[in-house]
Amino acid sequence: MLVEEKEKELLDLAFGRRYRELKERLVEMNEVDIASFIEELDPEKTLVVFRMLPKELSSEVFACLPVEQQQHIITSINDSELRAIIDDLYVDDAVDMLEELPASIVKRVLKSSSPDTRQLINQFLNYPENSAGSVMTAEYVGLKKTMTVAQAFAYIRKYGVDKETIYTCYVMDATRHLEGVVTVKDLLMNSYETVVEDIMDSRVIKAYTTEDQEKVVETFNEYNLLSLPVVDQENRLVGIITVDDVMDVMEQEATEDFEKMAAMLPSERPYLKTGVLQLAKNRILWLMVLMFSSMFTGGILLHYETAFSVIPLLVTFIPMLMSTGGNSGSQASTMIIRGMAVGEIEPSDILKVVWKEVRVGAVCGFCLALVTYIRLVLQYPGQQNIALTVVVSIFFTVILAKSIGCALPIAAKVIHLDPAIMASPMITTIVDACSMLLYFQAACFFLDM
Amino acid sequence: MLVEEKEKELLDLAFGRRYRELKERLVEMNEVDIASFIEELDPEKTLVVFRMLPKELSSEVFACLPVEQQQHIITSINDSELRAIIDDLYVDDAVDMLEELPASIVKRVLKSSSPDTRQLINQFLNYPENSAGSVMTAEYVGLKKTMTVAQAFAYIRKYGVDKETIYTCYVMDATRHLEGVVTVKDLLMNSYETVVEDIMDSRVIKAYTTEDQEKVVETFNEYNLLSLPVVDQENRLVGIITVDDVMDVMEQEATEDFEKMAAMLPSERPYLKTGVLQLAKNRILWLMVLMFSSMFTGGILLHYETAFSVIPLLVTFIPMLMSTGGNSGSQASTMIIRGMAVGEIEPSDILKVVWKEVRVGAVCGFCLALVTYIRLVLQYPGQQNIALTVVVSIFFTVILAKSIGCALPIAAKVIHLDPAIMASPMITTIVDACSMLLYFQAACFFLDM
Repeated sequence: MLVEEKEKELLDLAFGRRYRELKERLVEMNEVDIASFIEELDPEKTLVVFRMLPKELSSEVFACLPVEQQQHIITSINDSELRAIIDDLYVDDAVDMLEELPASIVKRVLKSSSPDTRQLINQFLNYPENSAGSVMTAEYVGLKKTMTVAQAFAYIRKYGVDKETIYTCYVMDATRHLEGVVTVKDLLMNSYETVVEDIMDSRVIKAYTTEDQEKVVETFNEYNLLSLPVVDQENRLVGIITVDDVMDVMEQEATEDFEKMAAMLPSERPYLKTGVLQLAKNRILWLMVLMFSSMFTGGILLHYETAFSVIPLLVTFIPMLMSTGGNSGSQASTMIIRGMAVGEIEPSDILKVVWKEVRVGAVCGFCLALVTYIRLVLQYPGQQNIALTVVVSIFFTVILAKSIGCALPIAAKVIHLDPAIMASPMITTIVDACSMLLYFQAACFFLDM
Repeated sequence: MLVEEKEKELLDLAFGRRYRELKERLVEMNEVDIASFIEELDPEKTLVVFRMLPKELSSEVFACLPVEQQQHIITSINDSELRAIIDDLYVDDAVDMLEELPASIVKRVLKSSSPDTRQLINQFLNYPENSAGSVMTAEYVGLKKTMTVAQAFAYIRKYGVDKETIYTCYVMDATRHLEGVVTVKDLLMNSYETVVEDIMDSRVIKAYTTEDQEKVVETFNEYNLLSLPVVDQENRLVGIITVDDVMDVMEQEATEDFEKMAAMLPSERPYLKTGVLQLAKNRILWLMVLMFSSMFTGGILLHYETAFSVIPLLVTFIPMLMSTGGNSGSQASTMIIRGMAVGEIEPSDILKVVWKEVRVGAVCGFCLALVTYIRLVLQYPGQQNIALTVVVSIFFTVILAKSIGCALPIAAKVIHLDPAIMASPMITTIVDACSMLLYFQAACFFLDM
């Protein structure tokens, strides 16, 4: 509430053209909050406000703006202003931005940036999407193992101000091979005469440039790191990944899993900024596949059509069986997919998992069957055989659904598919068909059809 | 692969009782890896190996062990060994452990710890579950604003070694009111004579002890923090939350959402370590609720039973309609629930969201209807009216499903329910009933029944 009121006041200042007051207020603020204020402005005011920011603040704010406004600013400022911003951005922020911009603008940005920055950006743009190389940054502190603590501090004081994280320093030899890490904490806790080699940790936990970013997240979680060095195939340090970028990756990966598990193609952009056609495109493929798969269940129903004509009451239990089966299966598959995503369950656990789910299915199936039996006996007294048919079907449907629900995601992982596609929608469609077959087999058995 | 081989070698050493060699190997290793090696051991060997670790390493390893082994170790060692471990643990790790242990063991642990530690632990145990207070740690560096940079470094060198993070220091007055923050980076970048007051940032981003941990995650993500100070109602600093704990919270919150969205009660323990009955208990409630809700759809089918007897072909399209409706609704609800969880969509966006989903639904519905129409005309030539019934039902079912799927999670949020319960299973059940009503209304209209 307070934030919103403050933003309203600032907007009043901007539209009242009281720019001096506005500037005084802005320089007191955090770059994230300034960016979210600028997001509210129209294109013309955006530029006015952006230009009134002090130089060092403006590139920080720029990094926090959405890509549309970055693009608007880039196309409206002159080359020397542009160069100042780009050279001031951390390389990974610049790369994030360039990946979203149209090619003509990218060209102008690269032309305006200094040769060093340009070379770095080009290098980063070449790493495969979602690889460790694509999320790393080139700003880190590199030390030599022969330095003393005092020399290390002097080096950090001199060169560290631009580095995205200075708290973990990397020790390299003359050819940039990574030899160890030393934290600022280690430096602070030892006397100024100590040599870096004596306090550095040579058991470095690191990532390779081509490694998947999901793997990087796992490493961060396992070892509680603040930053992770990224090396090339020859163990030469090329960059580091910082914890704030890893948190973004974690959020992005979880969102992707949610989308895949609801039968959608994952999208990179936020929902409110994605167009209707793009959203429809992400969803239609799976809807189509699942619609055609469900015709199989329809075929089963048609095949047993005679059963309905004889005992119409059988129809009324179809939604209950399909829904219970689908939900039971989704529960199991969700647990297993998530368990594999956080590294808790391995494909080698498959027997343990299936055996567990069969027992969980038996317990749940028994409870559901019991409750249904009581209801049916009360609601339709004398229809003993129909009650038996339904109850037996429920019991075995739940067990079957749990088994399919837990086995298919693991199977997908084994054959190197993404387990997330074996989630609720797919499992439900498969379990629907199975539960209907079971139901009508039970009906044939108990009702002599 | 390499890790597993290394672990096998260590296991061989442990079972061959070659303890001296084992110890030499262990002290070279990272505490996380030692803990995962100890996890493989039987209770007796666990104790032997744990006791051979040097004192400072043993409490770090202890913090990484699963609760069963912590409990086994606690009950097997004497009080002075216990005291050494507990006093050495970070308070938040100790609290995490105590929350899982049986009351009798908790008592013994508290009795054995030093009075200061005991007081801190008791204080932390009193914060509500999932609050900022419950995840914070008491180990932080507190400075005075009158200190110079040199004095600050001297203070950190003297007292900082035990602190979980030393990189962000908190400036307090005599009564512990939080006045500002200063990072080690700020300290390093300024001359030794500078006074802390001149370089500290007094616009402190902070959390209150009772604030929800989800809110804390949002703050970390928004401002890219390494640590966040936690204050009480009088703005007195009581602890800090570090980024590694926030990453654990993020993972835990995402897992909870996955579980809720698959109609399960969230569980705290990993899947493989949860008993069959506990798993069944977490799942049965929602299965029961949804089973009873689906009887409503069954009632609708029974009500239109005459329609089946006249045109049995109608039955075969039921699974297709229910599945397409359910999937369309789940897609919409998943997008919205996730969007709200990451703070991208607010309840005030409801009109924008519903209007977007209606249009997405129209596009998807049209494509699905078109494909189905072509199929039906080819498969059942001459059954024009049945084709029309099915096609019109699909089109409107998809639009309706998308609207319900996006509106209900937002409605849940407005009345302060967790939006995640309005996910796939609940939406599917509601949409099933609606799609069947639509289908039979269309049948009555086009087929004159």
